[in-house]
Amino acid sequence: MVARDLHPAASTVYVGQTPVGRSTFTLIAGPCAVESYDQAMIATKAAKAAGATILRGDVFKPRTSPYSFQGLGEEGLEILQECRRETGLPIVVEIVDVSHVQHVAEVADCIRVGTRNAQNFELLKECGLTNKPVMLKRGLAMTIDEWLQAAEYVAQRGNSDIILCERGIRTFEPATRNTLDLAGMAVAQHESHLPVIVDPSHAVGKRHLVAPMALAAVAAGADAVMIDVHHDPEHALCDGPQALLPEEIDDLGRRMAAVAAAVGRG
Amino acid sequence: MVARDLHPAASTVYVGQTPVGRSTFTLIAGPCAVESYDQAMIATKAAKAAGATILRGDVFKPRTSPYSFQGLGEEGLEILQECRRETGLPIVVEIVDVSHVQHVAEVADCIRVGTRNAQNFELLKECGLTNKPVMLKRGLAMTIDEWLQAAEYVAQRGNSDIILCERGIRTFEPATRNTLDLAGMAVAQHESHLPVIVDPSHAVGKRHLVAPMALAAVAAGADAVMIDVHHDPEHALCDGPQALLPEEIDDLGRRMAAVAAAVGRG
Amino acid sequence: MVARDLHPAASTVYVGQTPVGRSTFTLIAGPCAVESYDQAMIATKAAKAAGATILRGDVFKPRTSPYSFQGLGEEGLEILQECRRETGLPIVVEIVDVSHVQHVAEVADCIRVGTRNAQNFELLKECGLTNKPVMLKRGLAMTIDEWLQAAEYVAQRGNSDIILCERGIRTFEPATRNTLDLAGMAVAQHESHLPVIVDPSHAVGKRHLVAPMALAAVAAGADAVMIDVHHDPEHALCDGPQALLPEEIDDLGRRMAAVAAAVGRG
Amino acid sequence: MVARDLHPAASTVYVGQTPVGRSTFTLIAGPCAVESYDQAMIATKAAKAAGATILRGDVFKPRTSPYSFQGLGEEGLEILQECRRETGLPIVVEIVDVSHVQHVAEVADCIRVGTRNAQNFELLKECGLTNKPVMLKRGLAMTIDEWLQAAEYVAQRGNSDIILCERGIRTFEPATRNTLDLAGMAVAQHESHLPVIVDPSHAVGKRHLVAPMALAAVAAGADAVMIDVHHDPEHALCDGPQALLPEEIDDLGRRMAAVAAAVGRG
Repeated sequence: MVARDLHPAASTVYVGQTPVGRSTFTLIAGPCAVESYDQAMIATKAAKAAGATILRGDVFKPRTSPYSFQGLGEEGLEILQECRRETGLPIVVEIVDVSHVQHVAEVADCIRVGTRNAQNFELLKECGLTNKPVMLKRGLAMTIDEWLQAAEYVAQRGNSDIILCERGIRTFEPATRNTLDLAGMAVAQHESHLPVIVDPSHAVGKRHLVAPMALAAVAAGADAVMIDVHHDPEHALCDGPQALLPEEIDDLGRRMAAVAAAVGRG
Repeated sequence: MVARDLHPAASTVYVGQTPVGRSTFTLIAGPCAVESYDQAMIATKAAKAAGATILRGDVFKPRTSPYSFQGLGEEGLEILQECRRETGLPIVVEIVDVSHVQHVAEVADCIRVGTRNAQNFELLKECGLTNKPVMLKRGLAMTIDEWLQAAEYVAQRGNSDIILCERGIRTFEPATRNTLDLAGMAVAQHESHLPVIVDPSHAVGKRHLVAPMALAAVAAGADAVMIDVHHDPEHALCDGPQALLPEEIDDLGRRMAAVAAAVGRG
Repeated sequence: MVARDLHPAASTVYVGQTPVGRSTFTLIAGPCAVESYDQAMIATKAAKAAGATILRGDVFKPRTSPYSFQGLGEEGLEILQECRRETGLPIVVEIVDVSHVQHVAEVADCIRVGTRNAQNFELLKECGLTNKPVMLKRGLAMTIDEWLQAAEYVAQRGNSDIILCERGIRTFEPATRNTLDLAGMAVAQHESHLPVIVDPSHAVGKRHLVAPMALAAVAAGADAVMIDVHHDPEHALCDGPQALLPEEIDDLGRRMAAVAAAVGRG
Repeated sequence: MVARDLHPAASTVYVGQTPVGRSTFTLIAGPCAVESYDQAMIATKAAKAAGATILRGDVFKPRTSPYSFQGLGEEGLEILQECRRETGLPIVVEIVDVSHVQHVAEVADCIRVGTRNAQNFELLKECGLTNKPVMLKRGLAMTIDEWLQAAEYVAQRGNSDIILCERGIRTFEPATRNTLDLAGMAVAQHESHLPVIVDPSHAVGKRHLVAPMALAAVAAGADAVMIDVHHDPEHALCDGPQALLPEEIDDLGRRMAAVAAAVGRG
């Protein structure tokens, strides 16, 4: 159901009123994790000022260690809704458990399945029962073929508003957190009709590499780019080293727009 | 809580009455998926005859494609209990969703978290609330350090009866389904006090490679080896190409016992 | 000697009269292998028309199988010189054996060490004794740190005119020939003062992916991009599936120039 | 020429008088690098006492950094010959450059092509022109199919006395130097008629993992195992952390013999 063969035209998926698809280019930005009202609002306003039309922000964090910050949960959801009210930006939020899916889907404009849950098939099936778009990140060791089959679990239950998100795969190279597979993004666009976007922040894990990879993603034809923003990365509770400062996302927003124009993407 | 530093002595975990730990060697065998009463019983009896003291068999199958066989569910659980009644072998069963955990933990002697759920932290936490041993497979792209941290999610909730299972990692080599990382097994035994076992069947994915890798695992000091058995692999509903025939597991059981004796494992 | 610490300013390396460095953007194009005078000349003229200022073309081909086409050798070198005479483009040629290095270095404007020889230290040392620029491709399984140390073998012998070339690393993903590591390119630019370029053709191995990855490389800040061209890819003796047709490189040249301008590169 | 299809029976290759093949099990041991007469002789005697019937020892070391110890060269060859005279053990020595091949082949009983040169086709061709056995290590990122094709370069020139050596592949796991692919060894034995051996020392890079992996290799059916020995690893000039002490190789020799007997290998 997600393959090109039976559905040759590329799909556009709407997150709130914002289209994500081949006919436009979209910036998604915001805090990696919601930590407080003030922190989230600063990031949200910086995202909007930089041209973002979708807000990211997580409240349930699947962390490698159980001793790391696990997210604000319900309180975080309230903060995100407040950010939406103030700025009008639709919100995308990660869900990590079947029991949260329906509730988060009511509140958020798009629900996201993270890398570590990319083959959590029960979660995918539950997402397929909602009426909100589902953003599906590629697993760390997932082939593109497996990624599309995971999307099929969502589509099969009746929800084909799916956005694929490339965010780096695991390789032998230790200099970056993961290896951003931009060609994999292009392959997924070729094999499926779904929008495919790129998250350079989680792929590289280092601030100074986010901008070149974001620009590369735009030039390669990504349907959207998703960026972490934090006003005080050194004190961030999650993934500070990869977050852009408000002034950095602002600068990058301008440069992405120039590249988007150069490759004929509005 | 799973690290050696604070718990220098190796732990033994009991599955039913069967010990799994450094002082013994244990064979776990049975069907990959339970398909029918007859199929499961043939595999169970072959497993027992070959020296297995724990029965494996799955009823919920997390398959890459939603169009593949997904398991018999509750009916399969009934069949496994029947197999246990007939042979006395304790059973280990994969769980794939938080909502099943408590129920399966009541029925089974050990619950298993599969490769694709190895960083499904909500599932791990729920397993930590049961009073049955938890077998935790290594994720396809999981470092050993991440594997131990995933085990920590279980232990932190109060259940430290954890068995780690190496089952191959994803690499560039296409000749085998995955690359069995036996040194990774040895590292996990060194870094943690938990028993560490090996599943050669799912690692290699090809029948003729299962025996050499099972023998290698025993020689390397694995605390147990887990093997798929099927009487008619060509018609198996799941992973037939890697299943051993009853006569093959019988022969392998003898050879594993010889190697276990040679390395001083009862 | 190649690290930034001791040499903070980025270096520019001249291939013939063509600069390769941070202050400009350079297109390198031409045939993968020289097959005949006509084939090479068509590719050379297409490369020049598309904006290339350096010509690539190989005459010694290190092929995985000994039964594949191994290159025209000396005859191929004559053809390349002919192409240079006609178009004025300087030429870069792969060397594969210590015994060829001095001879090829006399004829060519830049010598190239290929992926499979990236840690052939005797070859690197010999290149360090020439007075021509050395293009060093990254090995398939080479970390960036190892790549820079390989460059050090060249520099240590007295030749610091070195150009690094990212061309994809080996990962588990089978959809592309290799995984283009554009962030690795950016890391190499950050860690070393050497120019770092990208070869999307050999990285992806599929024609339709070359253009998006070439554009991505430009946007990410690559100092040059190197592209295979062939007028009849189906009958190419080497790597036909990744070669662009003359009209395709022409179109891509224009699009790369637009992206280069958008990111402030000449 | 190396494939099973045309040569169904497994080959035995003789290094000096020592057979390497499916009908026996062989221990190869000695110093990683020859550093001095005394160091080499201690390692050689320890190797022989432990049951080794072939001596390893290198005099040309292809090191990642040009600032590391590069080997004793000709002086080291003299020392190795002295070790052979005293103990009667045939010697295997790495060659790294085409210009050395004929000379080393005259002196040594077996020449070895290392991991970093595994696709240095000029070197392979030159080895094919000697009349000594060639040990071909698997490249860090080489598929088994590519490994066999590299062996074909040697065989095609007339020398089919080739021994394949698995020594770990590069993966994402940082806990070991490389990931020992024992199943890859078994696949190579299945696909080719050549003897296939295992070097656990270079695969794992850590002393305490060498013994379990050596035992695993024997159990899996490796035709030989090759082990580094050093009497003072902390002061070794190369790869000290993986070298076994004389008493450790002695103990391991006994345990390998027991496992070899258990799997029916003399």
